Amino acid sequence: MIVPGPDGPALIVCTTCRGPGRVDGGGAALAAALAALAALAALPGTGVAIAPMACLWSCERGASVQLRAPGKIGYVMGGFAPADAPDLLAFAQAYAASADGEVPYREWPKGVLGRFLARTPPAGGLVA
Amino acid sequence: MIVPGPDGPALIVCTTCRGPGRVDGGGAALAAALAALAALAALPGTGVAIAPMACLWSCERGASVQLRAPGKIGYVMGGFAPADAPDLLAFAQAYAASADGEVPYREWPKGVLGRFLARTPPAGGLVA
Repeated sequence: MIVPGPDGPALIVCTTCRGPGRVDGGGAALAAALAALAALAALPGTGVAIAPMACLWSCERGASVQLRAPGKIGYVMGGFAPADAPDLLAFAQAYAASADGEVPYREWPKGVLGRFLARTPPAGGLVA
Repeated sequence: MIVPGPDGPALIVCTTCRGPGRVDGGGAALAAALAALAALAALPGTGVAIAPMACLWSCERGASVQLRAPGKIGYVMGGFAPADAPDLLAFAQAYAASADGEVPYREWPKGVLGRFLARTPPAGGLVA
């Protein structure tokens, strides 16, 4: 069921991921996901909505997130631990400030390297 | 750079993937991707646009595709060989006919099982 969500720049954070290593115990994983979420939401002035959502179907690469904004290239990312939250948010801020969602590689924080599972072209468009 | 693309139901097919097993040789991989693409495009009445795009950034799970439609949940999928094309297209047709992008599991063709890398909520929405 589709429900209303943010229509501007948003970082969708999976709340049911078990985290790197697929650690047993949903509770521990949930705690880790919530800790990451709290770390993200606590930082002010991001210009990016933090939107929790249950299961993004990227369970093999948890904890996973998706970055999106109208008319921009979106990203599916995974393998995050709570400690990556600041770097992830820094990337999201650079993304929100970009024209089309492309952030120059030299500006990528270390914590997002190797974390991309897909880039998703915006509605009505493709990436050339 | 974002360029115009299909604005209805579309299956975006990566043209630079190397295919399952990450077979060496870009040429062979490209041939496989194009063979899959041709197989898809040759089947009539799909109601789904076939949109080739270079590198969807899902190189670890090639050949990869993305299924999308306005207002529907999208899917990032990977690990396809050309022989999976009929099943993939059948799934895309069921998707195009669905209300919100959710295809009942019992209708999933075998060729799409285990191939989902992410589900992406539509612009302005989340999945509950």
